[in-house]
Amino acid sequence: MTNLALGLAALAEVRAIDALTRRFPRHPEQWNRPHEADAEIVKLTALGPDTYLAATIDGIANEWTSGFFKDPYTAGWVLVQSNLSDLAAVGAAPIGLLSALAFPPGSTELASRLAEGIADALAACGVAALGGDLNEGPAPAMTACAIGLVTGRPVGRTGIQPGDGLWATGPLGAGNALAIVQLMGLPPALAPESAYRPQARLAEGQALRPFARAMMDTSDGPMSTLDHLARLNGVGMRIDFDPDRLVEPRVLAAFRSAGLPAWPLLCGEHGEYELMVAIPPDAEAGLLAAAPQATRLATATAEPGLMAVLPDGREVPFDGGYIRNLPERTQGDWKAYAEAFQAFGAGLGLP
Amino acid sequence: MTNLALGLAALAEVRAIDALTRRFPRHPEQWNRPHEADAEIVKLTALGPDTYLAATIDGIANEWTSGFFKDPYTAGWVLVQSNLSDLAAVGAAPIGLLSALAFPPGSTELASRLAEGIADALAACGVAALGGDLNEGPAPAMTACAIGLVTGRPVGRTGIQPGDGLWATGPLGAGNALAIVQLMGLPPALAPESAYRPQARLAEGQALRPFARAMMDTSDGPMSTLDHLARLNGVGMRIDFDPDRLVEPRVLAAFRSAGLPAWPLLCGEHGEYELMVAIPPDAEAGLLAAAPQATRLATATAEPGLMAVLPDGREVPFDGGYIRNLPERTQGDWKAYAEAFQAFGAGLGLP
Repeated sequence: MTNLALGLAALAEVRAIDALTRRFPRHPEQWNRPHEADAEIVKLTALGPDTYLAATIDGIANEWTSGFFKDPYTAGWVLVQSNLSDLAAVGAAPIGLLSALAFPPGSTELASRLAEGIADALAACGVAALGGDLNEGPAPAMTACAIGLVTGRPVGRTGIQPGDGLWATGPLGAGNALAIVQLMGLPPALAPESAYRPQARLAEGQALRPFARAMMDTSDGPMSTLDHLARLNGVGMRIDFDPDRLVEPRVLAAFRSAGLPAWPLLCGEHGEYELMVAIPPDAEAGLLAAAPQATRLATATAEPGLMAVLPDGREVPFDGGYIRNLPERTQGDWKAYAEAFQAFGAGLGLP
Repeated sequence: MTNLALGLAALAEVRAIDALTRRFPRHPEQWNRPHEADAEIVKLTALGPDTYLAATIDGIANEWTSGFFKDPYTAGWVLVQSNLSDLAAVGAAPIGLLSALAFPPGSTELASRLAEGIADALAACGVAALGGDLNEGPAPAMTACAIGLVTGRPVGRTGIQPGDGLWATGPLGAGNALAIVQLMGLPPALAPESAYRPQARLAEGQALRPFARAMMDTSDGPMSTLDHLARLNGVGMRIDFDPDRLVEPRVLAAFRSAGLPAWPLLCGEHGEYELMVAIPPDAEAGLLAAAPQATRLATATAEPGLMAVLPDGREVPFDGGYIRNLPERTQGDWKAYAEAFQAFGAGLGLP
């Protein structure tokens, strides 16, 4: 077992996937190993030396049943963007998307509102719906698969070297803001669901691919993304943990004016679908040309673990695995989850 | 509106899909129109003149919740085979499969049994698992996406000419046998679930592609498949409706010895994942070389509609739309469905 595998094995989700898929046959030309790229990448040897298929499958499940999304339009929109974001993170050019939807009998209004979200998200990204499957089921179910091509060197989640900079392609916190407001029952105006319309960074992903060491989208939240990249690459991260600089200004202002702390906007597990990009120090000009909104978050270190450097200069070791394993530990008890989450940040004195 | 579209519009499922996907953007290089191929086919213009992506997404839903499958191994097996069968029906060479699975907390045994079915089905077909997604959910949910390539002229569901023969690549009835036994509460030994292990006809699909006019798998049952092909192609079908010749011998013997009619084995909507292949009369030798188990079912006719020719020589007009629209008409009332289904066949005097 490698160091990389040991680092990931601390995560309950990774252990569950590995146990389940233990006997699944692998493709001899698959470029990425499990957990090591946002999309699956397979060399198409018959089609030339540098041609790869990129594909991903992702569904909306907890976000709907837990009431994180209340408008089916949001579910349709995010279903599309989450899949396209995985293609973006490997620098793929999308071919199209397939969707598998199921609704209880008589859900015409819900289904058509969801379809509006899908149609608008695809149009916003200039990506086609190739087809799909429609079923009846006891509860709404929505899964999609996005397929694309990579021509040239693929990029995954590995390859980060100490000294590399970690950059986000845009402002952070919108996903966690919505989750906090919806799940804690705060006034919706703090983070309206209708304002949560993440955009897969397809153009940025393709432009960054030639010089990025690694990319991963922030679908699980910014800090979880840094944690995952650190574990996979056997490096640490020294993080400039300044919500005032990193969080989307509209979201930050709303939370500040309501007297709410800002750190959960970076530490929660609901993301904004930006790309987290690792680049060597000499590639910063290229990165900013490809992604002008990009912000530097962290520097990879040889010393493992995450270290949050707070605005007051304090250095706080940050146990990313704690939050990432909380869902498994609290087993669906949302109150216990929220209390443990808040105690974690308060204990560290996060701003 | 074309004749073809009018024929399909008689089907509730088709109307529901068309209404839902009305605003979905289409791909300019998509080879097939909606409903006109088992898998979606997109020309990859950048990769050569004759290279097409083939992709499909399909889930196990009703089959699990309705108790049609009781062993999660069967669900995993059929999840794989149903997707690969769609690739087979367009003559694609598979690249691999992605799966999206969700289970309620604590479903370790169910999940691992399902995973065994997936692993064994993939191994039986020599196809790789590229990756996937694992979630928690209120009920088991299972969706997969299969991706492949077509090099050369693709085949869909259209192109059938009057005079073409319709052939099935193997014996029929196993899917309906299991459905009838499970849903009617008959003795399981009549059609053991462990014997229902359909095999996607991948090799046959690729071998038949060069000379098949059209192909479609029998996932919705043999008669529904013929009905769909007839509507799409604006032709009729003169069907040699002889269960003794068409039904899998083991299944037929069990039903006969229990005093059960055989016609539901061909008319129900649970399939066996053979390919239904339309070929011109002069291609029969080639078909039998590519698929030695193939059996001739029907001849396409200029006169629309399905005509069942019974073993006693009687000719019976067969309204395929009636059975295909029964689920919508009976709205989940399984008893009403079964009664209407039985009355339909008895009314026609089917054997």
